[in-house]
Amino acid sequence: MLTKSQIKLITSLKQKKYRQQEGLFVAEGLKTIKELLNSSLKLYHVFTTASFEMDAIEETVITEKELKKISFLTTPNTALAVFRIPEATQIKTNHLIVALDDVRDPGNLGTIIRLCDWFGVVDLVCSTATVDCYNPKVVQATMGSITRVTVSYLNLENFLATSNTEVYGAFMDGENVYKSELPSKGVLVLGNEANGISPAIEALVTKRISIPRFGQLQATESLNVATATAILLSEFKRNS
Amino acid sequence: MLTKSQIKLITSLKQKKYRQQEGLFVAEGLKTIKELLNSSLKLYHVFTTASFEMDAIEETVITEKELKKISFLTTPNTALAVFRIPEATQIKTNHLIVALDDVRDPGNLGTIIRLCDWFGVVDLVCSTATVDCYNPKVVQATMGSITRVTVSYLNLENFLATSNTEVYGAFMDGENVYKSELPSKGVLVLGNEANGISPAIEALVTKRISIPRFGQLQATESLNVATATAILLSEFKRNS
Repeated sequence: MLTKSQIKLITSLKQKKYRQQEGLFVAEGLKTIKELLNSSLKLYHVFTTASFEMDAIEETVITEKELKKISFLTTPNTALAVFRIPEATQIKTNHLIVALDDVRDPGNLGTIIRLCDWFGVVDLVCSTATVDCYNPKVVQATMGSITRVTVSYLNLENFLATSNTEVYGAFMDGENVYKSELPSKGVLVLGNEANGISPAIEALVTKRISIPRFGQLQATESLNVATATAILLSEFKRNS
Repeated sequence: MLTKSQIKLITSLKQKKYRQQEGLFVAEGLKTIKELLNSSLKLYHVFTTASFEMDAIEETVITEKELKKISFLTTPNTALAVFRIPEATQIKTNHLIVALDDVRDPGNLGTIIRLCDWFGVVDLVCSTATVDCYNPKVVQATMGSITRVTVSYLNLENFLATSNTEVYGAFMDGENVYKSELPSKGVLVLGNEANGISPAIEALVTKRISIPRFGQLQATESLNVATATAILLSEFKRNS
């Protein structure tokens, strides 16, 4: 059975403020929860309509109706788990790092985390205004990739200024990425959905790159930030 | 002023059945509407809170409240236009064609149409079970690209069987796309979000290709269909 205080806690975790205060986030769906259980993440509690039948798991078996009450999804799927937000870890600068300058859409961030996982990028650094990676929509969209990609929120300007490495930025007027020599380490910066990379961050970019357009699109048009990330990561990795 | 029959017509266009019956679809937002007005698409009527002040435009100036009533968006933006669905046109087989085998998510289809536009793919062919490209969410997501990409719904099996060209399919176990020779014409097939390419279509694929994984993801995991399309189209075009 669910207690009132459990319901209150879980629903509060929709908001970043309470996630940070409690150090907890929500994951839903059996597949995602099992991936998270198999990672270094620490489980706080799982609420499920069918017992996991695993020792050392803090679980409460609940009814479908109770699950519906706490779920963030329109069609809840068997279980909702609460995990602890991991402690910040050291960023490894001897690999390619992806940096996001104020990406706001949870679906885009989720897709980018998934892409980092696919292409073996272990560190994703985000400006503090970038959408929270423990937002339930982001957790859902990463499909477990959040356990393998370390997401750090920090002052992006300071980080780049002191990173001591090439900083690649995606711009309309950059060098053709298909003809650029791309290294195995450095930072690749992607910008906000509406405004691109901000002037303060642009000033720290050392290599401007661009994905060529082949169609009749006007020069002012751009690709979505998640699809641009897909193409650029593919270019960084294809010869490695 | 809006009439009752106008409201009834517009709201009915949320459903594919009525879009097909009336031969009409809805586009919203000033930027998208202006792109569509500048294309070969035929306007049926525009409902706007601020007159377009253009001759030869069938418009009705309405209030914000009326716009809210007919809009499909949570935050309506100035105008809603109804356009005529264009007649089917001949598919040009001397270029690269993208084919979708039952892609169901409107956001994915919208992103794929945008990518086709970016990479100069003029023909997108879709199985009849693929989500309708005149679905309001798709129209919105293409950001005007729907005016430059011809989307044809057809029996994909028949089309591929008689296409007389190489059929590339994205599979987990295909040839490394980074090492494949990719031609400037042919058909590139992408599959359903959950099930990939169906067995009937798989049987018609002549070249199986794959995007290599670099991270610790398991072999059963896949990329989202829109990001996979981004990477594959980039590969087909990067040397052209």
